[in-house]
This record gives sequence, structure tokens and C-alpha cells, in this order.
Amino acid sequence: MSSPVAEVKFLSGVKIVDFTQFEAGPSCTEALAWLGADVVKIENPKMGDPGRRLRPGKPDDDPYYFHVFNANKRSMTVNLKSPAGLNLVKDMLRHADVCIENFAPGAIERLGLGYDVVRELNPGIIYAQVKGFGEGSPYERNLAFDMIAQACGGTFSVTGEADGPPTRPGISLGDTGTGMLMAITILGALYKRRETGEGHRLQVAMQDAIMHYMRINFATQGRTGKAAERGGSKVPGVRNAPMGLYPCAPGGPNDYIYIMTSRANPEHWDRLLKLMGREDLIGDAKYATPDDRLEREEEVDAIIASWTRKHTKHDAMRAVGDAGIPAGAVLDTMELESDATFEQRGIMQVMRHPIHRDFKMPGWPVRIDGKPPALKSSPVLGEHTDAVLSEWLGLNAQAVAALKTDGAL
Amino acid sequence: MSSPVAEVKFLSGVKIVDFTQFEAGPSCTEALAWLGADVVKIENPKMGDPGRRLRPGKPDDDPYYFHVFNANKRSMTVNLKSPAGLNLVKDMLRHADVCIENFAPGAIERLGLGYDVVRELNPGIIYAQVKGFGEGSPYERNLAFDMIAQACGGTFSVTGEADGPPTRPGISLGDTGTGMLMAITILGALYKRRETGEGHRLQVAMQDAIMHYMRINFATQGRTGKAAERGGSKVPGVRNAPMGLYPCAPGGPNDYIYIMTSRANPEHWDRLLKLMGREDLIGDAKYATPDDRLEREEEVDAIIASWTRKHTKHDAMRAVGDAGIPAGAVLDTMELESDATFEQRGIMQVMRHPIHRDFKMPGWPVRIDGKPPALKSSPVLGEHTDAVLSEWLGLNAQAVAALKTDGAL
Repeated sequence: MSSPVAEVKFLSGVKIVDFTQFEAGPSCTEALAWLGADVVKIENPKMGDPGRRLRPGKPDDDPYYFHVFNANKRSMTVNLKSPAGLNLVKDMLRHADVCIENFAPGAIERLGLGYDVVRELNPGIIYAQVKGFGEGSPYERNLAFDMIAQACGGTFSVTGEADGPPTRPGISLGDTGTGMLMAITILGALYKRRETGEGHRLQVAMQDAIMHYMRINFATQGRTGKAAERGGSKVPGVRNAPMGLYPCAPGGPNDYIYIMTSRANPEHWDRLLKLMGREDLIGDAKYATPDDRLEREEEVDAIIASWTRKHTKHDAMRAVGDAGIPAGAVLDTMELESDATFEQRGIMQVMRHPIHRDFKMPGWPVRIDGKPPALKSSPVLGEHTDAVLSEWLGLNAQAVAALKTDGAL
Repeated sequence: MSSPVAEVKFLSGVKIVDFTQFEAGPSCTEALAWLGADVVKIENPKMGDPGRRLRPGKPDDDPYYFHVFNANKRSMTVNLKSPAGLNLVKDMLRHADVCIENFAPGAIERLGLGYDVVRELNPGIIYAQVKGFGEGSPYERNLAFDMIAQACGGTFSVTGEADGPPTRPGISLGDTGTGMLMAITILGALYKRRETGEGHRLQVAMQDAIMHYMRINFATQGRTGKAAERGGSKVPGVRNAPMGLYPCAPGGPNDYIYIMTSRANPEHWDRLLKLMGREDLIGDAKYATPDDRLEREEEVDAIIASWTRKHTKHDAMRAVGDAGIPAGAVLDTMELESDATFEQRGIMQVMRHPIHRDFKMPGWPVRIDGKPPALKSSPVLGEHTDAVLSEWLGLNAQAVAALKTDGAL
């Protein structure tokens, strides 16, 4: 059988000097790496990206965090505090197409690599920065992590039970969500640059980026005139029944199915009744229209749940789906990892790492001519220092050795 | 004062034939439109994109949903069921750089515009498709909406209280999250195409795309060997205290602040105690280390909450942030809309529409040389039919009138 994945070379030849750490920046450069860019992580020789070691003082005991955001990249170590190290990076920036960082506010300038400096070295460079809050925001000097950006960007306010507290969505949208918007903008700038050779400065703030993902909630507010609300697993603003999460056998923490009938498809309700052995209710005036069912939403939900409780979520998803009604089982990470069809389709791939054990993870999910990009291992700290210095700057082994002796690498 | 936004021309000259509807496809083409592409929505002359009218049979009473995903685009009406209409679209596809659709599985082929047909017309075209489930998945024929993709992609399983049911994150990540990954891939293909002229077929499934945003949860599973869990507003796998959501004055549904001390910064705890007037506890062995505090997490949370309850979330965010500890107020859509600094920075912009009332919404949040792209109105149905036919195909007014008489437009 042929491989379900392929090497993608859309961005081959694009050189990226990557100062990013943790997730918001690394998720951006990883997207570019999957499409074929040469992403070189510039890492501190002592510890590297702090995302390699999330527990201070501990050895590299959580490599998975690093793996998932740094596949397909190369790593070189540079001591940016040494004059020789700084000069070396400046030489690399002269050859780069893109430079990107997500340090705390002011840090890249203190290193002597602010936009004004780098633009002088290379007027055609695309210089990208990710921060927590935007320049000009009252909080522009504040640090932000994913949870902070999500709280301040609105996602907490629309997640959770209607009568409960705001709740954190369990995904790191403040980080990866921001990284994706920056990747799009970098690619737009690269496209134009093929014509003009012009460089640009790109800046995004995590709080601002979160609002992009909140537009449906802003649209609801536009219609109702009130702040968008949370509604458990119902969707506030979409008034329909049945719609929501229903419990399945055998009753485990994720044994639920989402069933969503559509107001535009009144036949959904009759089909559900038939599937669930409740033909007696077909045509019953109490439940005839979506508005009738909304008025009796608790009864309607009980009718559905008394059927779903007798089926596993997989059986229920198959049966409801086959009846032509949108339905989805709630799947957890273990169930997704264990489902071999994702690996067969190249959506999940196994990272073979020179040091750590094999690790199956989601790769880039877009198929290109039928195949997603092939996953390559995240780099060992400094694994590509020599190769990058040779390929980018033409330095030979002797020159590299001298830089090491100098403490520059 | 100069405008905080600017017209962006990164993708000027890129022609996109856009068959998409609702959100997953439109969010993708809108990102390209914000960067300057000529995105032409091909719409059914009767009703247009169903996202214009989310309530069947009702007039256009929820334009905001359409606005937020269709800014900066043009609209032309074409009757794809008429031979002349179909031919017209084929002529447009001969001139296009990108074609994109997110119809139900099989629909674009039934229209006679499947990849095999379009590639014949234009071998250099980038042909992009968004579906609910991937080709080769057991559910490849199933319909999916955002909630279904999120349930099946894992986000429900990691959102909600630890002892409660899985919960829907309140943002439409299944739609817009997928749209962003497709936009990145289209841009990669466009970049390469400047060199090779080669077309490509791109396909993404919403279930698969959601897993991209779940990578941090897969990383946690890699370390623990167990399915990633939900933990309310705590982050399972990040063991630290204090960390989480704390209630603020005056006690409204979104009057909370997220406070996050870092294990890597032991001084955060002492600083918090000082700020909160609990210097008496500085150095207290009961709370000395992160592990001590985790063991007494309820006590620690009570200490923090007794202070936060006396302050508004804004005052608390300012004070905790000034003390150097990451903190973020939970903001709702109304609070974000009302904060004038977003509009001053060009992050929120007002859509001036020829028919509907002014609407303030988040634009593209990335600044390019200091300014985000300027927002233009979403199109009225068919607003640009004549202009597009003239610009793309050189048709004069007489030819367009004849097509209208024929029922092709």
C-alpha cells in the first residue's frame, strides 16, 4: 500500500529564523514547516525553548508538548547574549525571508534584534511578532498565557452552563488560534514579496485574535442587542429542538451524542421518531413545529434520551446519521488516537524521534492532491546547528568549532 | 488623526470563485479577501448563501451572521441549474486562481463542477474543498455542522467541569478553525504556483481540523497515558495553585478574573499575598511550595477569592497585572464592543452597509506595517454581478442583460 502522506514543497526555499517559544509562535512556524519552509529554531544552548521543559528544574519529562508544536523544524543553539552569537544571528537574518518572535513585550528589542535593527540588515524581511495584548491596548505591557487571552477575548463568557460560571474552553485557542492567523498573514506577505521584494512588519495580539473566533457570538449580539450568552451544549441564538447532547450507554464520562435537527428540515423530527420507535408521536400536535418542540423542550429531550441511553454513542451516531440527521459522538483523545482510520488516512501520524519513544499525533489535516504532509520529528536541541551554519552561511566545520569554543553556540 | 486601518494588497490580482456557504468555507475566503484577493461569491439568485437567512422562510433578519463571514467580498448571482449559468461559471473558472466549495458530500459533482471537470478547464487552478468528515472516514457521507465536528473532534470531551458532562466550547471552532487551516494551505499552494503554474486539489474535513487545535490535549495524554480530561477553568495537566477563575464584584455572570501564577516564578505567590494584604502568610510553611499550595488548593483559592470579591474585575486585572502576575478579566461581547480602544486600534471596525444598519465587528486582527486591513461591507445579493462579468469576462451590458433574460443570473 502506498503511503497516505507525502512531502509537501509549497514553501521550499523559504528561510525562517524562528525565535518563538511555547505555543502561539511555534504553532505558526510549524504550519509553515509542514508546507515545506526551512524553519530554524534559534534556541538558548542551556535549556532551549522553555516548551521543552514545562516543569522547572526537571529534565525533559514532557517532550510531547514540544513535539506537537515543533514537528518538521530544525534546531540550532545560539547564545544571543554573546557578541559572536548575536552577529551570527544577524548574518542569518540577512539571508532569511521571515523572522518571528513571541517573547515578552520589549524583550526582542533588549536583545538588539528589534524591527528597526533587523530591517536595516534586510529590508525585504517579513518580521512577525505575537504578543498577549496589542500595541496601544491598556494592557500592552502585560504578559499573557492562553487562559488570560481567552478570558479577555471573550471565549470564557460564552462557554459553560447557562446558570453556571464562565468556563475555559479546553483547547488552547489563544495560542494556536493566534498562530494560524499570523501564518495566513505571513503567507500573504510572502506571496506579494515574490513580486515586489518588499518586507513588512506583522503584529498580532492574542486577545485580538481570539475575537476573530468569537465573530459568531458578536453576530448573535448584533441581532439580540445583548451580550452573547452561554448555554451548556445548546447554542444560544439557535432556537431549535431537539438539539444538544444526549447520554448514551454505558454511561461513561464521554458517552454522549450530539444530535441536531434543523429548523429548515421539518422531516428530521419525524425521522427521529421513527428511528426511536415512537411512530405514535408522528403528527402529534404537541410537537408539530419547531416552536412547539421548543416550548416542550424538556419533554422532547426526554424522548430522545430514553432512546440514546440504550445505545452506545457509536451505534447511535451510525443510526441517527443513516437516518439523515446530523449527529456526532463525543470522542476523547484516547478514542481518537485508537481509531486506526485516522492513521490510514494520514491525519494521525507517528513521530519517530531519535531519543524519545514513538508518539502518535495529529499532523497537518489538509490533504494536498490526496495526501497530508508527512510528519518529521521535532528536533533535538541544537541538532542542526552545524548543518544550518553550513547551508545558510557556508561556514565549515572549523569555523563552527571556533564559534563553539567562543561560547557563541 | 490618521486612520488606524489600511487597504492591504498582498493578494491583489488573485481571483477566487467562491461557492462556499455558512461559515467553514466563508471564513476561509474572507481571510483571503482581507488580504486583498478578489473573492466572488457565486450565489443562488433566489436566496443566496443560506447564511444570509438562517431562519427558513424569514426575510433577511439575521444579517450579522452573514456580515461577519463575508466582509470584503463581492457577490454575483448565477443559476447553476441553467446551462447558460453553468457555462458562465466555467468561463470564470478558466480565469480563476482558486475555486472553493463546502457543499454537502457529492453536491459539487452533481452540479457538474467536480475536480475532474474543473481541472480540465484550468489545470493551474487550486481547487479547495471543506467537508465534515474526511474521504475514507466511516462517516464520509455524513453531514456535519460545527457542533458535530467539535463533538467528534474532541473539544467537548475536554471542556466543562471535571465532574460534569462534556460541554460545547462557545465558539465555532469547527467552522472558522477549519477555514483558517484551509486558508493557510491555499496560500502555500498560491506561493508555489507563482513558480510552477501548477494547480492542486486541497481537501480538509472539519473533524480532522479540530484535532489540530486539540494537540495540547494529545500531548497531555502522551504524558499521562490517559485520555485528556476536563477541569472547569483549571488546566488538567498543569499542576499549580493558585490558578483559575476567581469571582469579582459586583457578582454578575461574567464578573470573574483568571489569575495564573507560574511554577517557574515562585515569587508570584509572595507578590499576590502582599497585594492582597496577607503579608502574614508570606513564608508560611503551609503554602511555601507549589506542591504545598496544590495540597491546600481550596484554602489557597479562598484566600485569593476573599480579595477578588472586593474588587471589580477591571480593578483586579490592573492590580494583579501591575504586580507582575498574569491575570485577565472575563470579558463578554458587549464589554469588548464597548471598549473604544479596540476601534482606535483598528481591531474592531464599523461595517457601513448599503441596506442594513451600521455594525461594529472584529476585523482581521493582524497589523501590517502598523495597521490592520480595512473592513468593507459584506455584499448585497448579486451586487457585483455586472461588474464581475465585465472585469473577469469582458461582457458588456447587453450581454449581461441577455443572460438575465435567459434566467442564467
